[in-house]
Amino acid sequence: MDISTPLFVDLYELTMAQGYFLENLNGEAVFSTFVRKLPINRNFLIACGLADVVSFLENFKFSSDDIDYLKSLGIFKDEFLDFLKELRFTGDVYALREGTVFFENEPILEIKAPIIQCQLLETYVLNQIQLQTMLATKGARICSVSQDRNVVDFGSRRAHGLDAGLKAARAFYISGMNATSNVLAGKIYNIPVTGTMAHSYIQVHSNEFDAFEAFSSIYPDTVLLIDTYDIYEGVENVIKLSKKLGDKFSITGIRIDSGDIITTSKEIRKILDRAGLYSVKIIASGSLDEYKIYEIAKENVPIDGFGVGTKAIVSEDAPFLDIVYKLTEYKGEGKFKKSKGKSTIPFQKQVYRYIDGGKYREDVISIYNEVLPGDPLIIKVMENGRLRDGAVDELDVIRERVKKELSMLPDNLKKLQKSEVVYPVKFSPSLEKIRTSL
Amino acid sequence: MDISTPLFVDLYELTMAQGYFLENLNGEAVFSTFVRKLPINRNFLIACGLADVVSFLENFKFSSDDIDYLKSLGIFKDEFLDFLKELRFTGDVYALREGTVFFENEPILEIKAPIIQCQLLETYVLNQIQLQTMLATKGARICSVSQDRNVVDFGSRRAHGLDAGLKAARAFYISGMNATSNVLAGKIYNIPVTGTMAHSYIQVHSNEFDAFEAFSSIYPDTVLLIDTYDIYEGVENVIKLSKKLGDKFSITGIRIDSGDIITTSKEIRKILDRAGLYSVKIIASGSLDEYKIYEIAKENVPIDGFGVGTKAIVSEDAPFLDIVYKLTEYKGEGKFKKSKGKSTIPFQKQVYRYIDGGKYREDVISIYNEVLPGDPLIIKVMENGRLRDGAVDELDVIRERVKKELSMLPDNLKKLQKSEVVYPVKFSPSLEKIRTSL
Repeated sequence: MDISTPLFVDLYELTMAQGYFLENLNGEAVFSTFVRKLPINRNFLIACGLADVVSFLENFKFSSDDIDYLKSLGIFKDEFLDFLKELRFTGDVYALREGTVFFENEPILEIKAPIIQCQLLETYVLNQIQLQTMLATKGARICSVSQDRNVVDFGSRRAHGLDAGLKAARAFYISGMNATSNVLAGKIYNIPVTGTMAHSYIQVHSNEFDAFEAFSSIYPDTVLLIDTYDIYEGVENVIKLSKKLGDKFSITGIRIDSGDIITTSKEIRKILDRAGLYSVKIIASGSLDEYKIYEIAKENVPIDGFGVGTKAIVSEDAPFLDIVYKLTEYKGEGKFKKSKGKSTIPFQKQVYRYIDGGKYREDVISIYNEVLPGDPLIIKVMENGRLRDGAVDELDVIRERVKKELSMLPDNLKKLQKSEVVYPVKFSPSLEKIRTSL
Repeated sequence: MDISTPLFVDLYELTMAQGYFLENLNGEAVFSTFVRKLPINRNFLIACGLADVVSFLENFKFSSDDIDYLKSLGIFKDEFLDFLKELRFTGDVYALREGTVFFENEPILEIKAPIIQCQLLETYVLNQIQLQTMLATKGARICSVSQDRNVVDFGSRRAHGLDAGLKAARAFYISGMNATSNVLAGKIYNIPVTGTMAHSYIQVHSNEFDAFEAFSSIYPDTVLLIDTYDIYEGVENVIKLSKKLGDKFSITGIRIDSGDIITTSKEIRKILDRAGLYSVKIIASGSLDEYKIYEIAKENVPIDGFGVGTKAIVSEDAPFLDIVYKLTEYKGEGKFKKSKGKSTIPFQKQVYRYIDGGKYREDVISIYNEVLPGDPLIIKVMENGRLRDGAVDELDVIRERVKKELSMLPDNLKKLQKSEVVYPVKFSPSLEKIRTSL
């Protein structure tokens, strides 16, 4: 079943929509998606999820099955249901390109459309932009401390559901990871997939050496998992295999998935080197995240690659963003709310970023049509319900963008903890005037 | 696109599977799904996710598209791909009924099948059982401190993806919540959906009173959101509406979504009561979880219902389980691994639970075929790839089970923090003997 349907919506969006419909209120509105506060230990975020939102909007259509279900609820009038049945997305979308670094209060994605359409998109837009932005950011943190080591996504099994497993593979690839273990993600996104063996393979063979020999006869360049029984016997079995195979030995690595990987890999490296197996790499997995990898890199531990799983894919230290989708304009008029701690700033917006010596210096949030010096970050992605040429990027373009963005980020923002100096995000004079007047 | 396909798999499961295939190793194996350690602040877990696993197994089939993709990877031989194309699930499934309370090391779901089949199920089984068990448990914690107040799932927008949004609605309903805001979940699972208005509805009207009046003329029994501009003006507008409508006023509640909800709702209650609006209930939302709700219930704050969102749906304090899927038997022989901190105990298992004065006293994990006094908890759900009659329960049966299970749980385990007295989970004498011998 395809769950990417307009029925993935909170009921209140539909009750409000029927309200607008019956009141003949369907003027053009602007809704803005932004993060109110950066989560713990985050100094920036990386925009991700636009491609799915665009595809959702291009295919926006309630099925007759959906309409039947809505009718069964007994709260919607037939004329509204008839209207819903014909409803398509006909609006404009403005957004940061995927892979762009952004900060608190900056719009990630804004939708300008008749208010009924805008209102019905809230749940899907937030769900996807939050998940993918959170994970692209987590991935970038991990890759930025991994230096030149390989990082691979092993997380699908502990992702929150199937959708998260797939979207994570994509977001992590964008963020700089080298591959995913998830085969479906490989197929959908055309990204490299990787994986060799688990403990069970070793266990069904009569002993570990036989398992290694059997596996390497099928996959000569494979990575062998050495900690099923005893990690030191495991590495001895690898050495024994190298002696038995001689020139034909072409195992590329061993993987350690348990115990104190820092101490163990130092010892394993020595053992491998003593046996002349310099080219056999050490891959580590198990409870890895940016904090642990930072420690490993700092101590120059001889680990050549990481498989990151659970802590990465659930963004364990910050498993959600304070992300919202708010009305900011209706029929050309600025709209705001004053709810305590949850106030909003009116009008469709633009973001300008200023550079100094190759590094980002400050951002200015302006009203969309205000002209400021410099290049605006928000581009028009869809117009009248149609995708504009070149507005959605290829994955490798986004991946390159993330790399470039991170290289231009002030160093203090790359720290894994909150930077004392916050990146300056200002409001344009006209927006500042409106903001203080509220 | 339906993403519930066998291709949602880690590549290593397929490389191992090809290994077994080429080595003619396809004996009957048992893989066990269990949680190694309960997460922070958890004294029990609630089994959830079986229905999806069963449906996945019943429909297990690689599409020819999937096979083409696998072929394109260049690591699989044609005879193996032909074999995969015809592969269906033909094994047996043993599991706890959904809604059953369980503890560390107890099997939740075990699969007995030719090893190639077992191996290919790991990612899907873990992904779904972890997500749904984590959320059913979170939901049960929330409902258990909410006493008789209504609790509604508002989380979809901040769930990790679409699948998590839907599965959460189901798991939360099972756990005792009254409804979900997610319409698609309502349709799929036939559970109550709820929702009225957001701030945007208020904002597009010329003022709050007009918005309240318009909305209540369409939905007379609705809940009005009163904190768009000023919460005290908001409640005055509700009172003004009650005066204007007189006998026709039938608003059932007001909702507060910001600020200090404890202080505010006490004041709002007084204001409503002074106006004679005793029947208007107060609903609170915004950053609620079991800890906050416990505080509210303890202080007897006049809040009649809760909308729980982000912190519930991402299980913020414990966003993953240490859940694994491990080989424990091959061709009738017990299998184990000794990896540091990640060792496993061999053989297919059963769990017996003993009751004392209406409360659970202790569990004993045994080898599956060992006969112990009492009723076993693990039932045979599928046999030779087919679902057994009555093995998967209706949602309302599961919901009732959770209620009953919680009523039989020792009180110390219902605390929101770790209980000092851990629930006793023992091993049967034969299993204990094997365990200590390893």
